[in-house]
Amino acid sequence: MSNCKLNGAICAPATATGGALGIIRISGVQSLEILSHIFTKDVTQALPNTIHHGHIINKVGCPPIDEVLVSVFRAPHSYTGEDSAEISCHGSQYILNKVLELLCQNGCRMANPGEFTQRAYLNGKLDLSQAEAVADLIASTNRATHQMAMSQLRGHFSSRLAQLREQLLKLTSLLELELDFSDHEDLEFADRSELFDLAKEIDTHITELARSFEIGQVLKQGIPVAIVGKTNVGKSTLLNALLKDDRAIVSDIHGTTRDTIEDTIDINGVTFRFIDTAGIRQTTDTIEQIGINRTYAAIDKARIVLWLIDAEPSAAEVEDLQSRCAGKSLIIIRNKADLVDRTMFNVQCSMFNVLSISAKTGYNIDKLESQLFEAANIPEITENDIIVTNARHYDALLRAHDSIQRVIEGMGAKMVNGQWSMVNPSLSGDLLSEDLRHTLDILAEITGGQITPNEVLGNIFKNFCIGK
Amino acid sequence: MSNCKLNGAICAPATATGGALGIIRISGVQSLEILSHIFTKDVTQALPNTIHHGHIINKVGCPPIDEVLVSVFRAPHSYTGEDSAEISCHGSQYILNKVLELLCQNGCRMANPGEFTQRAYLNGKLDLSQAEAVADLIASTNRATHQMAMSQLRGHFSSRLAQLREQLLKLTSLLELELDFSDHEDLEFADRSELFDLAKEIDTHITELARSFEIGQVLKQGIPVAIVGKTNVGKSTLLNALLKDDRAIVSDIHGTTRDTIEDTIDINGVTFRFIDTAGIRQTTDTIEQIGINRTYAAIDKARIVLWLIDAEPSAAEVEDLQSRCAGKSLIIIRNKADLVDRTMFNVQCSMFNVLSISAKTGYNIDKLESQLFEAANIPEITENDIIVTNARHYDALLRAHDSIQRVIEGMGAKMVNGQWSMVNPSLSGDLLSEDLRHTLDILAEITGGQITPNEVLGNIFKNFCIGK
Repeated sequence: MSNCKLNGAICAPATATGGALGIIRISGVQSLEILSHIFTKDVTQALPNTIHHGHIINKVGCPPIDEVLVSVFRAPHSYTGEDSAEISCHGSQYILNKVLELLCQNGCRMANPGEFTQRAYLNGKLDLSQAEAVADLIASTNRATHQMAMSQLRGHFSSRLAQLREQLLKLTSLLELELDFSDHEDLEFADRSELFDLAKEIDTHITELARSFEIGQVLKQGIPVAIVGKTNVGKSTLLNALLKDDRAIVSDIHGTTRDTIEDTIDINGVTFRFIDTAGIRQTTDTIEQIGINRTYAAIDKARIVLWLIDAEPSAAEVEDLQSRCAGKSLIIIRNKADLVDRTMFNVQCSMFNVLSISAKTGYNIDKLESQLFEAANIPEITENDIIVTNARHYDALLRAHDSIQRVIEGMGAKMVNGQWSMVNPSLSGDLLSEDLRHTLDILAEITGGQITPNEVLGNIFKNFCIGK
Repeated sequence: MSNCKLNGAICAPATATGGALGIIRISGVQSLEILSHIFTKDVTQALPNTIHHGHIINKVGCPPIDEVLVSVFRAPHSYTGEDSAEISCHGSQYILNKVLELLCQNGCRMANPGEFTQRAYLNGKLDLSQAEAVADLIASTNRATHQMAMSQLRGHFSSRLAQLREQLLKLTSLLELELDFSDHEDLEFADRSELFDLAKEIDTHITELARSFEIGQVLKQGIPVAIVGKTNVGKSTLLNALLKDDRAIVSDIHGTTRDTIEDTIDINGVTFRFIDTAGIRQTTDTIEQIGINRTYAAIDKARIVLWLIDAEPSAAEVEDLQSRCAGKSLIIIRNKADLVDRTMFNVQCSMFNVLSISAKTGYNIDKLESQLFEAANIPEITENDIIVTNARHYDALLRAHDSIQRVIEGMGAKMVNGQWSMVNPSLSGDLLSEDLRHTLDILAEITGGQITPNEVLGNIFKNFCIGK
């Protein structure tokens, strides 16, 4: 049965429930034949990239299920690389279920999550890291996450890996050439220091990529911010003042709003996430001073700490908080600038920088946003920067790093004070070559250039949404 | 500016947030030009019903917003009757907002709810009742509501109204002919009894249509069912036993499930709605006997009452409940059939029909469903039956009914014991003709054949979803 085949016809809804339109996707061998069974037009001979108007019908004579548009795509010029189609129905759950039911009765099976993209990968339309970027792109919520996913989908990360692969292959081939001709003492090869430099260069590139993961994670999850301060100092008002500006131009139109408003704000396309802000807004606990465990826990998780004060803190308080915020950015803010004379307070607090704001009137909220963005210390990311955002890629890069380090050490080098220096005689070319091949294999896992085990594929695609 | 024009370019998301794909719809004069500004391909000359692969871009050189498919439709062969397009994006809210933003920056405006369908109506692609059926179709959740909406969309109701209109026009022209030639006493016309029969026939058809509204409402909103009975008799178990079978084949797949499970079940494609069932499941009140106000209120709202008993009720109890259920269907059920000897109980309850079930084991739940369906007394609806589901149509039908009755009365007839009989001399043809014209106008409101006031159109389309 075609269903058991890897390229049998699969179908799935590709849109969420509740819109004006609902799209059902179908792909695989026989998909156009199956569709033609339940559609008033025969699309088996339809030209690629054409749209056909008709009705979805159960049996001839029965009232139609829906009036639809069918878009036909033909192998290999389709998303999956297979013959495929999209049925644009009215967005009724009843209709969508009926159409899926009919497709399944006629030989389709329901697609697994990500199965369309998995097929695109298996048919060479995308590599694995690009396939993963599809899921990231769909999940992207701001400029930064969108840009990272789009860059990865467009193959920038894959190209960088391909460059690394070329360098590694060059190194390997030089070593293997040496190995092959090792009996011919009269042949001269590139000396080991050239190989050594090449290996170090590769190591530097791999390390750079791995390091980008930290910033990738922060951008993906949002920069954690803790708001601390005494009770009644205006933490919740501040949070509301920050949140209220975070509305997309079109997001107040029905159908484009998110169901839940998270306590995150976007500044210059980067998400800032407020830690335990539900607590801030709902708490009835009396927090008499900064020094309580809960606040400390929030600080520990934060990258930026907003300390809200309404009077000049004591030197001890300042010292205490500063020591707890070591390695983090601490922004000290005085709220209720509308109530007190600003100049006076600024003089009093001259021992440290304090930003005066009024959460109520919005005074200096823009400055606070600028300070938050600066404190986040996000490097300017351009189209060509590669940011690793995927834990699977990061893991592979770390292992590739270990592996290339073994090569360098095998060449007789040792890291001393952050610098490599030659301390030992080099291992033989064949041993080095083995480690190099291992590095290549690890990097190939990222794009799936090697044969990727089903288990790995399963793990990658199981987190996709249905219909993609 | 084109935005101010009735056919200026409009855009809107046509799918709900959260799917693999997100579709943005754009329609109107210049829509393909505007789209071509932000798309890597020029689609201004694209053939109708073709699909184009490319990127949505902001400015040349900037990284693309998304890799998309654009479907091009050309006037008049599009949904709206205008040049239009659909952009199939990755389903990220960020991407969809960005694309809408770019379209708006380039001369589109955000569409109002239902504006695409409103344009389809204004361009003669649909009449008003068909346009309203589009919204009903999208909202349809089961076979009955789907079938009613589909029938209306396919124009069956409109055809019936057209037939009525023809009959009315025939009647009018006969009367007006009589009027025009009233000076020529030598001319003979169809006698008044023929006109009278025709008027009665029209009245019968209008009445039938108006009567179908009751069943239409019940089918649309679900048949209200009250479950009553003493505490601990197993009401919530019964409800759960009924609810658990109400799972569509594909509804357990992520992306196709409804967010909230309502206390409704579908039997043979018809929805049954349990009144105040949240109360049934959560109540901690002690309901010692049937006779409490809350139960009575539920019975009042119900069309079917399920009375659950676990012991033989007294004659007084039966009489009391039966009197309260006058005009409704009462089904008496004994639960916990797994615990007690069935035969014994059946003998004891011989005074009335009792269905023995076990909510726990599922025994006779199928029989209960059959009884529920029978009790609902829903006539078999075929493709050709017209069921009025829309309050606006119902209102027009009632007024048309009044108007045609005035015509009949004007002819000298009076309703006596449900029968028309001629009691007075007929009014003159011109007076009758005026009432007939009024009837025609009222019926024309339904399909919008006359010029429909903007206010009416506004009310009709404001309840549509965005993007339709």
